[in-house]
Amino acid sequence: MNGIEILGFAAAVLTTASFLPQVYQTWKTKDVSALSLPMLTMFLTGITLWFIYGIYKDSPSLVIANGITIVSVFLLVYFKLKYGKK
Amino acid sequence: MNGIEILGFAAAVLTTASFLPQVYQTWKTKDVSALSLPMLTMFLTGITLWFIYGIYKDSPSLVIANGITIVSVFLLVYFKLKYGKK
Repeated sequence: MNGIEILGFAAAVLTTASFLPQVYQTWKTKDVSALSLPMLTMFLTGITLWFIYGIYKDSPSLVIANGITIVSVFLLVYFKLKYGKK
Repeated sequence: MNGIEILGFAAAVLTTASFLPQVYQTWKTKDVSALSLPMLTMFLTGITLWFIYGIYKDSPSLVIANGITIVSVFLLVYFKLKYGKK
């Protein structure tokens, strides 16, 4: 692994891990009032494209980061739909 | 611009634009209760590294997307610090 991919993996760890407190906080508090559904669904579509872009760009950092983030954001969308109705 | 960069730009537009409703909603409602400061600050550091990674990877999509998102997330951190105290 070269220096550029180490930088990419550091970026991947930070942006991926940054969603975990949000997922945990939302799951714990069930407070989804400040989460925007348009943001979440656009973001989910966007990171799916980044995932594909990462495959073509030969970037393991992009593929791993976006693969994991897709799962996290999918959970946030689920919480928003489940708790947002109340 | 080749096909791969078109895909990257589509990803860039979606992930960048997905922050705008969140910034607008937070600015309008001043409701920052469901925004997590650990998430925002880790994310801000992460996308700054993606920005640098994009320069080395010769990826205009990554540079433009993360450059704009840095500004958006910086605004969310500002709102959280400003309105989170109440």
